[in-house]
Amino acid sequence: MASQKSFAKGSAAPGPVAKGSVRLYSMRFCPFAQRSRLILNAKGIKHDIININLKDKPEWFLKRNPLGLVPTLETSTGEVIYESSIVCDYLDEVYPERKLLPSSPFAKAQQKMLLEHFSKVIPYFYKIPAGKNSGEDVSALEVELKEKFGKLNQELVNKKTKFFGGDSITMIDYMMWPFFERLDVFDMKPCLDKTPELRKWTECMSEDPAVKATRHSVDTYKGFYKTYQAGNADYDYGL
Amino acid sequence: MASQKSFAKGSAAPGPVAKGSVRLYSMRFCPFAQRSRLILNAKGIKHDIININLKDKPEWFLKRNPLGLVPTLETSTGEVIYESSIVCDYLDEVYPERKLLPSSPFAKAQQKMLLEHFSKVIPYFYKIPAGKNSGEDVSALEVELKEKFGKLNQELVNKKTKFFGGDSITMIDYMMWPFFERLDVFDMKPCLDKTPELRKWTECMSEDPAVKATRHSVDTYKGFYKTYQAGNADYDYGL
Repeated sequence: MASQKSFAKGSAAPGPVAKGSVRLYSMRFCPFAQRSRLILNAKGIKHDIININLKDKPEWFLKRNPLGLVPTLETSTGEVIYESSIVCDYLDEVYPERKLLPSSPFAKAQQKMLLEHFSKVIPYFYKIPAGKNSGEDVSALEVELKEKFGKLNQELVNKKTKFFGGDSITMIDYMMWPFFERLDVFDMKPCLDKTPELRKWTECMSEDPAVKATRHSVDTYKGFYKTYQAGNADYDYGL
Repeated sequence: MASQKSFAKGSAAPGPVAKGSVRLYSMRFCPFAQRSRLILNAKGIKHDIININLKDKPEWFLKRNPLGLVPTLETSTGEVIYESSIVCDYLDEVYPERKLLPSSPFAKAQQKMLLEHFSKVIPYFYKIPAGKNSGEDVSALEVELKEKFGKLNQELVNKKTKFFGGDSITMIDYMMWPFFERLDVFDMKPCLDKTPELRKWTECMSEDPAVKATRHSVDTYKGFYKTYQAGNADYDYGL
């Protein structure tokens, strides 16, 4: 279902969300939407995915979410939820199988603080590729990113665990992962050279079934981002 | 305790947090710290408050939170939590008395979405006073703010409730309140003229005991912000 072509303005609205299922409005290459896809997969939640053409959004989609954002979740009772981390927390709360957020209030707060810190790292995953694409010198940005990676690395060193919430994958890992998945696409992998624990984390994450189920090949990503950077994003690239 | 003079670099560190109590590192005029003070008050949580001189932070404070942010919460077991909404959620989860977040996952998600929306309104509460102070024309900014108030007003109209989470005050009301409290200080009250339900909400909020317990007089705020805008913030103004 995740590989369905995107719906654009003028398209017919999809039918209602089936009982016992949820629907995710997504875009195949959006890292924020991927967060929700990871959670749906990791928790084994029955769902369908409707891909949205973000340059030319369907009227029926804007009716459900006037902000027109992906990810947007719709339940069979017509509840509409957006903002990736709100969607993921909602799913984790409603579906008890394999809890991804810790039950301890302090451990949960720690994940939220780390996520807040990480939100200041995210812009680098956009600025560096954009700079490279327009032929700018991005070395200063890369130095800053490596510094931020250093702090994440230290977090793993202090915790002495494979993942950010312990020795198994939890919510925070899935929230950060989509951005790391794209390092290869933009030839940014060397940014991990000085942070071995963080690099090891990316290797462990790569083995996770939910990660495997939601990722594209580097070639497909490269193909999409080429159209994206040319200002003519092909949301159906590779289908 | 909230009216204690601020601690600066070189000051002696306060003693440990008493068992059965929590400590909030705060600044008397900070709207984000006020969010936490509102929750501590509303839930009747035993606490002490240590005010921090934000221009000249104590070394012992930076040791507890290297980011040096207020609000920062410290528990008697040495847990340290920062970021206002994370602190407030933590307090609501740990202290069962008078739950402020709804128990329904969807109602909770709705509050989080509204808070996310409101985070884009907050900059106006800074930009308009700063612009006024430097003699700029802020009328365009005020038009934008009124438009955003319009959406909040519509939310109350749609819900047909006095507060944003129902007919009694819940978390989202306390998260938004500190910024509205300052409208009077910056002569921005007329921005509410076209949004009667939202203005009514500010009036109802003003009657709340936790709001009354954490607010300063308009004169005190004006005095503080005068020093703040002059680049020489007096965190102990009015003491």
